[in-house]
Amino acid sequence: MENERLLMLPGPVPVPERVRQAMMRQAINHRGPEFGTAYADCAAVLKECFGTKNEVYIISGSGTAGMEAAVANFGRGKRIASLVNGKFGERLRDLGQRYGDVTAVESTWGTPLDLDALAAALEGGVEMVTMVHNETSAGILNPAKDVGKLARKHDALFVMDGVTSVGGDEVLADEWGVDIAIVGSQKCLAAPAGLAAVAVSDRAWERIAEDRPYYLDLAAYRKNGKKAPMETPYTPAVPLFLALAEAMAIIREEGMAARIARHRRMSASVRAAVSAWGLSMFPHLDAVHAYSNTVTAVAMPEGVTDSALRGTVKRMGIEIAGGQDHLKGKIFRIGSMGAVSAPEILATLAAVQHALRKAGVAGMGDGVGAAAEVLDA
Amino acid sequence: MENERLLMLPGPVPVPERVRQAMMRQAINHRGPEFGTAYADCAAVLKECFGTKNEVYIISGSGTAGMEAAVANFGRGKRIASLVNGKFGERLRDLGQRYGDVTAVESTWGTPLDLDALAAALEGGVEMVTMVHNETSAGILNPAKDVGKLARKHDALFVMDGVTSVGGDEVLADEWGVDIAIVGSQKCLAAPAGLAAVAVSDRAWERIAEDRPYYLDLAAYRKNGKKAPMETPYTPAVPLFLALAEAMAIIREEGMAARIARHRRMSASVRAAVSAWGLSMFPHLDAVHAYSNTVTAVAMPEGVTDSALRGTVKRMGIEIAGGQDHLKGKIFRIGSMGAVSAPEILATLAAVQHALRKAGVAGMGDGVGAAAEVLDA
Repeated sequence: MENERLLMLPGPVPVPERVRQAMMRQAINHRGPEFGTAYADCAAVLKECFGTKNEVYIISGSGTAGMEAAVANFGRGKRIASLVNGKFGERLRDLGQRYGDVTAVESTWGTPLDLDALAAALEGGVEMVTMVHNETSAGILNPAKDVGKLARKHDALFVMDGVTSVGGDEVLADEWGVDIAIVGSQKCLAAPAGLAAVAVSDRAWERIAEDRPYYLDLAAYRKNGKKAPMETPYTPAVPLFLALAEAMAIIREEGMAARIARHRRMSASVRAAVSAWGLSMFPHLDAVHAYSNTVTAVAMPEGVTDSALRGTVKRMGIEIAGGQDHLKGKIFRIGSMGAVSAPEILATLAAVQHALRKAGVAGMGDGVGAAAEVLDA
Repeated sequence: MENERLLMLPGPVPVPERVRQAMMRQAINHRGPEFGTAYADCAAVLKECFGTKNEVYIISGSGTAGMEAAVANFGRGKRIASLVNGKFGERLRDLGQRYGDVTAVESTWGTPLDLDALAAALEGGVEMVTMVHNETSAGILNPAKDVGKLARKHDALFVMDGVTSVGGDEVLADEWGVDIAIVGSQKCLAAPAGLAAVAVSDRAWERIAEDRPYYLDLAAYRKNGKKAPMETPYTPAVPLFLALAEAMAIIREEGMAARIARHRRMSASVRAAVSAWGLSMFPHLDAVHAYSNTVTAVAMPEGVTDSALRGTVKRMGIEIAGGQDHLKGKIFRIGSMGAVSAPEILATLAAVQHALRKAGVAGMGDGVGAAAEVLDA
């Protein structure tokens, strides 16, 4: 581990060695059977992660490229209601504004979405709803099922950013009525950064825009994805596909139900530590099921600076995340995505506990012990 | 090499082991100094490859993403003259049509560009010219210097697709008056597929469109690229950046002048073989300097099928390319890009020579020997 830090961030996450090893494969022709098989394998496992029977295509680009593909192909010129309660909700709102007529339904970062305002917007004729499922900037899990029900009632398309939930927490795209769901490779899937996958419903395909972008033209992905062997319209990032295929093999070996249970156990152990320390979650939510199961956001205790906390933790070889934008210095965040298991959690919590004590936080209980209780249960 | 084929295609190309090894690095934070340094190193060497002092930014996406970034950021709503003499010229034309008002200046695939028609279009008020420098579909190198002079005379922006020339053949973007030049990672740079680099002139930055795409918004790349450490606006394909940095180190060790000389020697040796075999180049060009130095296109001899030739070669572990679209079965193409040196060329030519003889081509001279003469010179 010399020169390597343990990344306990809301992505990128540590990538298992066998996944990295897959990238060592010499270049292969991306219009041949070996690549096509890797692509098809990825798509098959991703369907399980998304909870969908819909078609899944993979874009060489970040999660944001996937989000733009959704909005640009299906939202151009449309009336869009954009749900916002954190940084990635804002990004999706800004993205919507480049293509459609956006009604922003905004809540303070980390507070529940305003479903009444969404219902009103839908009554007013909105044709697409966008939502971030797991808002990492504030550690909140948004109610996809409720939003899906509202969108469906008004026959609006439902675009869900599942970048940091798919492959880690429960996602049931078909059951919830999600029309376009997106995931990034470097989060819960525990693959390297650089790919985005998009699941698209038949309902959405029927409404695809005439005027589409070129690189992110999902109709082109669909056309080439139906070839045998499966292809992408433009040269794909081959090593990343091979790595993702290996990451998908790991998911299949673990099983989605076990993987979700593991993510929930890990985040529950972090919350147990926060509680034992006497710190507050950020924000404080009434319903525990509203907390993210892939990242935990904690209010920074008074008198502790971001650099004192994260700097001390970093000197011990571990990176945790701070707050973004106006939350800088006000919260810290511990990711528990992907391949993370008890050793990484225990090491991280021990380092954080040490740093908080060193920074002078008084009266702290033993968070590490509390987490161990959860992990051992 | 079991299970590995020697790829002698116009990309993807074999990737040196040390470049692939760079991807094995555990995930790093892409907003930290290690990533920033890798990005800055890549940009510095790419400037040498482009022959430019302009800013260079790297997009996680294929060469096509780089082309779209150029056209979408600088050509939206503009009058564009699109030079076409092959498949990639057509792609650039199609791409232009999604954003601007395109005058297609078309020549038969593989024949010289129509510079008189371009001059007329420029007289008519065209504001942007697009051209593929090295048209791999037909093995032709287009006259960037002449086109740049015409564009500059009429104050039009000059967009050059250098996807298969930059890093292999001579490119002098600043001297030729190229405003936006693009390269892909998996061609002459001998890195894995998945990244595109874009060099942008000050003249172009002054004319950037107000209405830009999101993922491919070059103003966002510029803003984040000026940070210290250097960043990308969205999560980059980290392993590919690390691999590209290693590929750039190799280029610096070899030196651009030596690298260009090597590419020219390799392609000259292939042409010598074609001549000894008594076959015709496709197309036959009067000026030898108009042939591509990174891929050689050859007219398929009468009576030889694509599958007979390429199938036999493939059984010997080597992949060469066929023709694309209407040239399918009519030509074959041998790539000589990236890290390619004498052993790969000799093996490929020996396999092709054998396949042609086996397919019944009569009266063939010893192309392998002719190539060896060139390689040994």
